[in-house]
Amino acid sequence: MTVIKWEVRSGAYYDSVVLMQLQRGLLGLPGVVDAGVVMATPANRELLAANNLLPDSISANPDDLLIVVKATDGTFADAAITGVDELLTRRKATSSPNSLDFRPHSLSAAVKQLPEANWVLISVPGRYAAGVAREALELGKHVFLYSDNVSLEDEIALKKTARERGLLVMGPDCGTAIVNGVGLGFANRVRRGEIGLVAASGTGLQAVTVHIHSLGAGISHAIGAGGRDLKSDVGAITAHQALDLLARDPETKVIVLISKPPSPDVAAKLLSAAKSTGKPVVVDFIGYPPPARKLGNLHFATSLSEAAELAVNGNWELVIDEKLPITNSYLRGLFSGGTLAYETLLSSQAFLSPIYSNSPITNSQTLSDPLHSKCHTVIDLGDEFFMVGRLHPMIDNDLRIRRLRQEAADPEVSMILLDVVLGEGSHTNPAGELAPVIKEIREKRIGGPALSRVEGLEFVAIVIGTDDDPQNLQSQISQLQDSGVTVFRTVTEAVEYISLRFGASRESEFTPVDLGQLKRPLAAINVGLESFYDSLLSQGAQAVHVEWKPPAGGDERLAALLAKMKGKKEN
Amino acid sequence: MTVIKWEVRSGAYYDSVVLMQLQRGLLGLPGVVDAGVVMATPANRELLAANNLLPDSISANPDDLLIVVKATDGTFADAAITGVDELLTRRKATSSPNSLDFRPHSLSAAVKQLPEANWVLISVPGRYAAGVAREALELGKHVFLYSDNVSLEDEIALKKTARERGLLVMGPDCGTAIVNGVGLGFANRVRRGEIGLVAASGTGLQAVTVHIHSLGAGISHAIGAGGRDLKSDVGAITAHQALDLLARDPETKVIVLISKPPSPDVAAKLLSAAKSTGKPVVVDFIGYPPPARKLGNLHFATSLSEAAELAVNGNWELVIDEKLPITNSYLRGLFSGGTLAYETLLSSQAFLSPIYSNSPITNSQTLSDPLHSKCHTVIDLGDEFFMVGRLHPMIDNDLRIRRLRQEAADPEVSMILLDVVLGEGSHTNPAGELAPVIKEIREKRIGGPALSRVEGLEFVAIVIGTDDDPQNLQSQISQLQDSGVTVFRTVTEAVEYISLRFGASRESEFTPVDLGQLKRPLAAINVGLESFYDSLLSQGAQAVHVEWKPPAGGDERLAALLAKMKGKKEN
Repeated sequence: MTVIKWEVRSGAYYDSVVLMQLQRGLLGLPGVVDAGVVMATPANRELLAANNLLPDSISANPDDLLIVVKATDGTFADAAITGVDELLTRRKATSSPNSLDFRPHSLSAAVKQLPEANWVLISVPGRYAAGVAREALELGKHVFLYSDNVSLEDEIALKKTARERGLLVMGPDCGTAIVNGVGLGFANRVRRGEIGLVAASGTGLQAVTVHIHSLGAGISHAIGAGGRDLKSDVGAITAHQALDLLARDPETKVIVLISKPPSPDVAAKLLSAAKSTGKPVVVDFIGYPPPARKLGNLHFATSLSEAAELAVNGNWELVIDEKLPITNSYLRGLFSGGTLAYETLLSSQAFLSPIYSNSPITNSQTLSDPLHSKCHTVIDLGDEFFMVGRLHPMIDNDLRIRRLRQEAADPEVSMILLDVVLGEGSHTNPAGELAPVIKEIREKRIGGPALSRVEGLEFVAIVIGTDDDPQNLQSQISQLQDSGVTVFRTVTEAVEYISLRFGASRESEFTPVDLGQLKRPLAAINVGLESFYDSLLSQGAQAVHVEWKPPAGGDERLAALLAKMKGKKEN
Repeated sequence: MTVIKWEVRSGAYYDSVVLMQLQRGLLGLPGVVDAGVVMATPANRELLAANNLLPDSISANPDDLLIVVKATDGTFADAAITGVDELLTRRKATSSPNSLDFRPHSLSAAVKQLPEANWVLISVPGRYAAGVAREALELGKHVFLYSDNVSLEDEIALKKTARERGLLVMGPDCGTAIVNGVGLGFANRVRRGEIGLVAASGTGLQAVTVHIHSLGAGISHAIGAGGRDLKSDVGAITAHQALDLLARDPETKVIVLISKPPSPDVAAKLLSAAKSTGKPVVVDFIGYPPPARKLGNLHFATSLSEAAELAVNGNWELVIDEKLPITNSYLRGLFSGGTLAYETLLSSQAFLSPIYSNSPITNSQTLSDPLHSKCHTVIDLGDEFFMVGRLHPMIDNDLRIRRLRQEAADPEVSMILLDVVLGEGSHTNPAGELAPVIKEIREKRIGGPALSRVEGLEFVAIVIGTDDDPQNLQSQISQLQDSGVTVFRTVTEAVEYISLRFGASRESEFTPVDLGQLKRPLAAINVGLESFYDSLLSQGAQAVHVEWKPPAGGDERLAALLAKMKGKKEN
């Protein structure tokens, strides 16, 4: 028969290392079978319950510290509970091997001690983390924000401030980074080299850097962005800054971009920025269907290990785009084949945004009126909607020809994409009907009144057919080419071409991060987990650890009061 | 100034070829500027409106035929409208070059004329198509159902009936197939060869067969399933039958499986069936993030063209699984790294179903209580939920060790997967804490009471670290291996291993389709588009075309009455 005793301590702040050590200390006491030392959040209470350590009668607030001991009898349990303060004192005495060093108690004091510090590492509990980060930005420092449980609003505000000032906020919930050869947070020791990384994720970045190292190559810089950076609300602020930085860094020859799937609008902008770096960029948006193996200088991996392998062994023949890229105008895809339309949309959504379709991949791409395109549009004209009492567009070209004229009359359209599917059952001479109309449209639009604000109107066709097909493949292709259509034989090739024509663009509205600062020896101020400070020192970086305590000792009302009394900052 | 005139004809049935020809005929008349001949569905009315061919005052039902003419003046317009009947008569007179041939007016009559027919091609309007398909199945024929606008209920009923009888229903909305060298519907003329295809999609199948042909290889059979076959409601009935058929066909050496993304449960079952074929299977679920490049005999392509290239040039060293596969038990992944968990889930969902997580990819995978796993589960123990006032599981192993014991006590668990992430900032000896617990669990479960209905309990670990990391990579790996853990260095390798251990299974509850019948010279009955009949003949297949008219001439009330008077079938 075991006995459970507990104690609730309210209002006091303990860091999580102390809590872990207290729990271990309790487990080492005589007669103690199990112990739990946790902040009394609902999740932690559930965890205690799952371990049969939560008596029904405990009442505690999420901010309270809950100490529970299960022992073989009541005496041992009581002894353990009364031993808590002794364990805490013992911890204090042994925790600071360098306790003779002077340790600052605030960020500003730490900066005075190590003025060359260019980074602040923050791993205090989430509810305090944004405040510390704000202070760090005000002091002109880059922020590595390990803490989680930081609000989205705080993240956005911090990143916008940082972007204005040419500073980076990695995180919140940024587990890892490697800056100038020094690992921040969790980071593996890897060779230096020519591969730069931008990663929203922590262990994703670790897995890729480790694999790159094991393949014999190395890392220039690895920049973390935090798990939410690529969500629409945040807009990948840090990832954009990081891409821009690595683009300008002459030592970075290849860039790897890792994240969980970003929202479609963010993905398109970020990939466009990646394109504009001009360097080979290996992309692994884990769970985002790759638009292709390769789109210009972008190379898509389907796993972390493949991302590393591509970065190390990639074959980087960069395509030089001879034509001027098209900007500020739209693609309209008019398909007879549903799957061809779908594959085109899937690939194009990586670089065309916004894009709509009557056969959308995500709900946000739904074209509300299939009869009228908007922005970039890919239409499946063989969709059931169009098919009642009507022959399939692979047999009857009437619907498509009407739509061709309609799209061509839209001055915002610069490219019309068609598929032409040959074979048994299809129209006997589709090019014979389509090509004359295209020719007529082209002549009208080039020679006629200035209908368009874009130069001319480009036609691209994907011709699906074999040399044995009844339509005569070569004649079909020639008829299209003769009327000025650029012809491809697969969706893949057509999409690669389109991606080059619709140019890359970089988010330009931010103060660039000073590359020189990134390349200075790393010096950092650590606020939070002491092990991160130890790690910095063991890697030869200069560092100062702040003996941080929450404002007003964790008393939130008092802290709010203090915050109002600005200027009177304690040291 | 142009004039628009129109006519509404109700109750009559015209096939869509007649409508197209009528429209073209009207356009050829003097003074006619534009014309529309359509069934008056909302979509078609919108289309007329978009072409300025829909006067406000027209009232017509969706089943009515709407004939609209725009002419340079009223006389021409009137003349065109009154010319409609003449055009229709002329069409009738010229439409049947073989009009002296006897043409059956019903499916049963056609079967008498061509008893060896093993296929029925159906391309009548959607609302009549299910009825014709039902009749074909009753006559013991495979069905190629080109028609769209067939209800989901009808599709499910037809496919269930077919499955019971060992028959295939390709479609509805099945654009293409190649059976025994003969293209059905839309199909390109391609070389015969060793590559068999199963495709939910039409032009997807065409694009892949064309590309295979252009690469010099050929097709054994290409089986269409229809765009909805891989939805949960239908459960990929046809795709399962087709995979089974191609698995048994000795001439098919490689299988290609194409579809838009299936629902997760359907995907896992279908991929499991694909695995069980034992043949190399190239999978392109367009838009479904590939779980890996390769999982056993499954090879994942990211585009139609790559699917063809893999099928032709793939390197098929099949992995032989020496251990017996695990069945009817579960995997539990307990991760410290969020991205490692996510990548594992992403890959595993392709072959483990149902699978749950506190960091799910689809909503249906959400683990309602993160503290208790169910079925296959992948847990990110570094998720914010667990992290308030607690150190990260990469530093503190307590949470994971507790969870390890919890999972091991579940008799349905046969494999526990861990990540062990080394490097700066992480625990100095994670294996030193994990390995002894694993050893203890293994000994208890092997030597102890028959807790489990599976043989033993397998542990697999992904160790992320470099030879320079402070923990000593080799010692970490050895400690784990010494306690019986199978160790991998990347998620990719671990997932490949797990996919081999959790065996393949084929849907077994159906009557297999007779392979012999598939290999007999194709003979078919065509109901609907005459061009499909012409195509069959031109490919040297035996065929009969049914002079189909809708029941009761398209009068639905009368048709319903007739349907009730079963047995009195007209000939």
